[in-house]
Amino acid sequence: MINYDEAYANVLSHTLDFDQESVSLGHCNGRILAEDVLADRDFPPFDRATKDGIAISSKGLEKGVRTFKIEGVASAGMPQHTLHELHNCIEIMTGAVVPKNADTVVMYEHLNIKDGMATLLQDVKKAQDIHFKGSDVVLGTVLLPKNTIIGPAEIGILASVGKSEVRVKKTPKVCVVSTGNELIAVSETPLPHQIRRSNALSLCAALQKEKIEATSIHLKDEKATIKKELSQILKTYDVVLLSGGVSKGKFDFIPEVMDSLKVKKVFHRVAQKPGKPFWFGIQPTLKTIVFSFPGNPVSTFANYHVYFIPWLCRSLGIEISREEVVLDGSLEVHLPLTRFVQVKTENKKGVLWARPVRENGSGDLTSLVHSDGFICLRPREKAYEKGEVVPYIPT
Amino acid sequence: MINYDEAYANVLSHTLDFDQESVSLGHCNGRILAEDVLADRDFPPFDRATKDGIAISSKGLEKGVRTFKIEGVASAGMPQHTLHELHNCIEIMTGAVVPKNADTVVMYEHLNIKDGMATLLQDVKKAQDIHFKGSDVVLGTVLLPKNTIIGPAEIGILASVGKSEVRVKKTPKVCVVSTGNELIAVSETPLPHQIRRSNALSLCAALQKEKIEATSIHLKDEKATIKKELSQILKTYDVVLLSGGVSKGKFDFIPEVMDSLKVKKVFHRVAQKPGKPFWFGIQPTLKTIVFSFPGNPVSTFANYHVYFIPWLCRSLGIEISREEVVLDGSLEVHLPLTRFVQVKTENKKGVLWARPVRENGSGDLTSLVHSDGFICLRPREKAYEKGEVVPYIPT
Repeated sequence: MINYDEAYANVLSHTLDFDQESVSLGHCNGRILAEDVLADRDFPPFDRATKDGIAISSKGLEKGVRTFKIEGVASAGMPQHTLHELHNCIEIMTGAVVPKNADTVVMYEHLNIKDGMATLLQDVKKAQDIHFKGSDVVLGTVLLPKNTIIGPAEIGILASVGKSEVRVKKTPKVCVVSTGNELIAVSETPLPHQIRRSNALSLCAALQKEKIEATSIHLKDEKATIKKELSQILKTYDVVLLSGGVSKGKFDFIPEVMDSLKVKKVFHRVAQKPGKPFWFGIQPTLKTIVFSFPGNPVSTFANYHVYFIPWLCRSLGIEISREEVVLDGSLEVHLPLTRFVQVKTENKKGVLWARPVRENGSGDLTSLVHSDGFICLRPREKAYEKGEVVPYIPT
Repeated sequence: MINYDEAYANVLSHTLDFDQESVSLGHCNGRILAEDVLADRDFPPFDRATKDGIAISSKGLEKGVRTFKIEGVASAGMPQHTLHELHNCIEIMTGAVVPKNADTVVMYEHLNIKDGMATLLQDVKKAQDIHFKGSDVVLGTVLLPKNTIIGPAEIGILASVGKSEVRVKKTPKVCVVSTGNELIAVSETPLPHQIRRSNALSLCAALQKEKIEATSIHLKDEKATIKKELSQILKTYDVVLLSGGVSKGKFDFIPEVMDSLKVKKVFHRVAQKPGKPFWFGIQPTLKTIVFSFPGNPVSTFANYHVYFIPWLCRSLGIEISREEVVLDGSLEVHLPLTRFVQVKTENKKGVLWARPVRENGSGDLTSLVHSDGFICLRPREKAYEKGEVVPYIPT
C-alpha cells in the first residue's frame, strides 16, 4: 500500500497525448486550444471613435476654432472619410473610422449643434475618445497561446481573427465500466437485495463537464465475461474508468483479470479514506490507462476528482487547479490514512470557509449532493482544527 | 439615468416563468429540477456489508465463540441468506445483504481462515462494518428539492430512485442580435474599416454554459430592416439580447424601434462604466424581455454577467451567487458611476485575491481573456484600496 502523494505522482507520470483535431468555432467552447492564435491585424484595426459626436483636427483647436462646420457623417462600417478643413468637422458614430486629418473626437453631450454647425461646450483634449489602431495589440501578437481553455471570451478573440475552424486537443475516448451483480438498470424495479446503477451515470455526467462523451458499460461479476469484455474495451478506448471489483471480496476479479490482459499494475491500494482499494494501471502495448475505483459512491467520486481530473489536465497540457480553503470545524486524523472529507464551501468576505458535510460512510450517496468538494487531510499526529488552511478539490 | 442598484432591482422585478418539461436522465446534466425527488425506498435499502469478510451474530460473540464455521457465501446481488447457528458464519462481500440472524461483519484482514473455519484475530464490536437499512435516509425523504441544479452527484441520486425521466425547468428561447454595419462574418476577410462579428458568438458561448442554445442573428443598421426583423424575433423568443445600437449615434435605432414595436422601456442608460447606454425593456403582450447591451465587447460581456445571469437565475428559481474578493491593488472611483473592473483572481491560503487586469477601454476585447470576472465598485468619495472586500461577478 502506498500513500496518497506517491499514488498521485504515479498517476501523473502516466499521462497520454491525445493528438489534435479541427473543430468549427461553434463547437470549440470548453475545448483546449492546440495552436497559438495570433492577431491577424492590429487591434483595433483602425483609429476608432469611442463616442458619438464629431471628429475634428487638433490643429483647428490650436488655432482657436471652437465652432465647426459639419461636412459629413461617418458611421461604423463606412470606409475612412477625409476631413477637408481645419474649421470643419465630421459627425462620427461609435465604432467608425476616425477621418483622415482628424485626431480628436468630441461627444454630443459636450456640443451644441445648430444649423449645421457644432460648437464646443467645454475644453477638449487632443486625441480624446479615440481607440487608436494597434493600441490593444499589434499584428502578430500571440492573443491566445496553445493550451488555453476556450471559453466565451476566447471565442470572441477567435471570431475576431477569423478562425472559423480551430485546432483543439482531442479528448480521450473514455469507457466507464461498472461491475456488481446487485446493480440493475435505472428503469428497472429493484428486488430487496438490488440497487440501481448510479456511479457510472454520475461519472458520465462528470465527464461531460470535461467535454467527454463517455460510453458506459455494465458487467456482471463473472470472471470470463469481465475478461472478454475488458479485452475489447482496452483495445477501443484510451481510458477505462472502472467502479467496483477491486476490493478483497471473492468476486473482485478486476486485479486478476487486468493481469491476464497484460495491464501492468502501477499500484493497488492507497493509504486513504475513502477509496483505499483504488487500482491503477496501464496496458503498455495499447497505451490504455485503467483507473479502477472502489464501488462505493463516495469512494468513486472522490477518486475521480482526486486522481482522474489532474491526470486529464496534465494530459491535455492545462494547469491543475490548486485551491485552498479555511476549515470551519475540527476533524480527527485516521493514521496512517490521508482523508478526503466532503465539505460545503462558503465565501465570507473573500475567504473560502469549508464546513464538513455529515456523511454516513462511503456508501452514503445522498451526502454527495450536500457538498461541493473534498478537502485533503494528510496524516499527522494532531487533529485538524477550525481555521487551518487545507487543500480543496472542487467537485 | 438610474444607478446600478436601481437598474439591477428593475431587471430582477421582470423575471419570467419558463414552464417545465421532461427530459431523459442522460440529458438533464446542468438543468434545474422542477419537482421534489423523494427516496423511493430506504437508503441503503437493506443492511449492507461494507467490508469483505464474514457475517456473524453478536450473540455468538457474547457466548465466547471466536472460531466460526463457514456455512455459505453471500455476495452482492444475492437475495438475503440466513445464518443458522451462533457458532457459524457466512462469508460476505461488500455490498451484500447481511444475512438474517447476523448483525456484525468482520473483515478478512482481522481473520484467520483455515479448513472452512474463520478465527477472529482481534476484538470485534457488535454491529461493525454494516451500513444499516435507512441509516442514510428513509423512504419518502426529499432527496433533491425542486430548484436544485442537477450535476453529477444529483444524477447519481436520480438514477438510484429510478428517474429515467426527470421534470426540469425549461430554459428560455434566446435570440442574440448584433447590429452594426462595420461587422462582417467570421469567415470573411475584413476591409480596413470592417471588423468581424465577435460579441454575438461570445454571448452564444456564454449561454451554452446555462444550457441555452441561442439563435444568433445579425442586422444592418437600417431602421426598416431592424424593425421588421425584431418584430418577428419578439414573437418567436422569450428573451432578446442585443449588442449595439443603443448609444446616441445617428444609427442607434434600437430605442426608437423598440418603442414602435410596443416594447416598454423599463430603463435606458445606467450610471455605470462600462455599459452606460444599457437599455432594458419588456413587450408586455408577448412577454418578451429585451436586454439591449452597448456594442463594445467589454460592455456587452459585463452587462451580460451583471444583469442577465442574475435575471436568469431568479427566473429559474435558483440562488443568485454572491461572491466577494479581496482587492489586490488600488482603484480610482469615477463619480457618479459604478465601475465594473476586470480582475484575475487567485486563491492564496483560502483567500480570494483579485488583481485588476490592464484594459485599454471597453473596446479592448483582448483584455477579457486575461480576467475571470468583474469586481463591482460602487461610487463613493474615496478611492478603493488594496485589502478591501468588494463584490465579485465571475465570468
